[in-house]
Amino acid sequence: MTARQVIISIDAMGGDDAPNSVINGSAIAMMRYPNLKVKLFGDKSQLENLCAEKLSKYQDRYEIEHSDDVVAPDEKPSVALRKGRASSMRHAIDSVKNGDADAVVSAGNTGALMAMSKYVLKTLPDIHRPAIASMLPTKRGDCVMLDLGANVSCNEDHLCQFAFMGSALAKTILGFNNPRVALLNVGEEEVKGNYEVQQAYQRLNSLEVPFDFIGFVEGNDIASGNVDVVVADGFSGNVALKTAEGTADLIAYYLSQAMKSSFLTRLGYALMRSSMKTLADRLNPQLYNGALFLGMGNVVVKSHGGANEQGIANALGVAYDAVWFGFNDLVITELHKMPIAASLPAEADI
Amino acid sequence: MTARQVIISIDAMGGDDAPNSVINGSAIAMMRYPNLKVKLFGDKSQLENLCAEKLSKYQDRYEIEHSDDVVAPDEKPSVALRKGRASSMRHAIDSVKNGDADAVVSAGNTGALMAMSKYVLKTLPDIHRPAIASMLPTKRGDCVMLDLGANVSCNEDHLCQFAFMGSALAKTILGFNNPRVALLNVGEEEVKGNYEVQQAYQRLNSLEVPFDFIGFVEGNDIASGNVDVVVADGFSGNVALKTAEGTADLIAYYLSQAMKSSFLTRLGYALMRSSMKTLADRLNPQLYNGALFLGMGNVVVKSHGGANEQGIANALGVAYDAVWFGFNDLVITELHKMPIAASLPAEADI
Repeated sequence: MTARQVIISIDAMGGDDAPNSVINGSAIAMMRYPNLKVKLFGDKSQLENLCAEKLSKYQDRYEIEHSDDVVAPDEKPSVALRKGRASSMRHAIDSVKNGDADAVVSAGNTGALMAMSKYVLKTLPDIHRPAIASMLPTKRGDCVMLDLGANVSCNEDHLCQFAFMGSALAKTILGFNNPRVALLNVGEEEVKGNYEVQQAYQRLNSLEVPFDFIGFVEGNDIASGNVDVVVADGFSGNVALKTAEGTADLIAYYLSQAMKSSFLTRLGYALMRSSMKTLADRLNPQLYNGALFLGMGNVVVKSHGGANEQGIANALGVAYDAVWFGFNDLVITELHKMPIAASLPAEADI
Repeated sequence: MTARQVIISIDAMGGDDAPNSVINGSAIAMMRYPNLKVKLFGDKSQLENLCAEKLSKYQDRYEIEHSDDVVAPDEKPSVALRKGRASSMRHAIDSVKNGDADAVVSAGNTGALMAMSKYVLKTLPDIHRPAIASMLPTKRGDCVMLDLGANVSCNEDHLCQFAFMGSALAKTILGFNNPRVALLNVGEEEVKGNYEVQQAYQRLNSLEVPFDFIGFVEGNDIASGNVDVVVADGFSGNVALKTAEGTADLIAYYLSQAMKSSFLTRLGYALMRSSMKTLADRLNPQLYNGALFLGMGNVVVKSHGGANEQGIANALGVAYDAVWFGFNDLVITELHKMPIAASLPAEADI
């Protein structure tokens, strides 16, 4: 066992229940990952009191860095970039740039986190646009899906880069050797879809790719377990993610109504409680909290604003794994297999 | 009570289990709708035997029309259009054109049905592109969603027309007086989304529309019951529909595993069986079978290829209601409230 450490900076003031959820989530993550250290950025006096109470077991594994300011959840990214230099989010990002931490996690304003990360940390060499990726549950383990909303319109170059980056994520965090990668489309036949997905299909089919390119999949394949990496533009990817959430919510609502409908169903439910809890756990969005900004120069993880301490701990876990298993190094290595230069004229054609 | 009849032509050879599912589904629909007559198009000898057995109660309410040919499920739409003139699908569409029927239903090849319908029946005046719409379950009744895949890219003119047509569908088939109509987007704020949805938002906001335009919704709002008509381009609309199906399928799978996990859960399930059946019924895709091609000169309904007799009966019900409640007339009346001419220069700008 190596004594290597992973240091993660966290915006302690971002999220609906910050800083409580962040401190409690950090405690859970430090219990899970003995090699994890956290740097907490935010209001020093507030954090010192909370940490003294909640992190007393981990005194040598956390540091508090004071920040005067906080990025508001509804702040425009451009404004946050200009005026948020003293914010906890910006300080956390700066600490990664300065080499004081390996990764940054925030449950704050998504657009601001993306804009500041791009400005401070830059993108990896040859990356056109960073994408947002997350793990989702399927019938057989998890899959990776991207882009979840960073780029509302994408050309085929972007989609191809997303395929490479998503594959690298599935290899490092999910441990797949040869992930099955597909483009999200409205049909599986080669002739289906818009110009961008058709061009990306042709390109990926003609390249020697470091993954198993299986072509097109449809929305109902995302959770099927038949694909490990689902690549989409940020518009349809976001629509798919949110629709899946809404459908799960609808079914939970129907289920809760069914449970309450009579004495016998309530009795039946009581007998089934433990396995229903297992079901609820498998669909718990907190379990899947932590979206990576792929293509950034360093590991940046966005937590859902409504994440509780379990959610924060999982987001820290995603950042930890991405650092520990060398996600960014793999992206750099594997993107060399994609002839970017050759693709640039095609981009200009659009 | 009027003696008015609704005559629906149905492609008896289209669908995985045709013609059985079609004949049995017709029987169910004729039981439900005393004013319904059906014209069945397909292989005459095969249909005569089946109908003699299954439709004996409705001898004066069905007719069989012979067609030599069938459109294959994987036939290219352009080929079906050129070579399918003797097909059951084409004959069923032609019968509507000739005034022998009020609507057409098919569970066959979607692209071929769209291409043939456009060619034979034409679109309504000023309609740029027909859209595919369906009803979906929500926490409070049903909503209408469109486009589900007819148009993989749409400009703001198309999206605005979809809003008008979807509203007319919600008024006629779902009985809403003032449906809440929204554009599907990746966020609710005005600045979110791509160029097309932003332009459509501005346009609908500035017009006096015959519905309650509530702005943008996200994927998780589709099933929330807070919106009656969800408008999307055909790419993201199709992705949302299929993702919802896949998520429901995933949860059903988890649920079936949870049910089987121990003797107590099996006993609990036995006690809950009737309410679990109610739950399954509410999510049964057959219940929502029947997608309308909006903007066609006549009522055209596409059934899922895998529809069973219940599904076919529901698709016939959608066509019946669209005719009975004057859906196309309402579209024509209300589209006059949208200044199409003024919108054409904007289209050329893209």
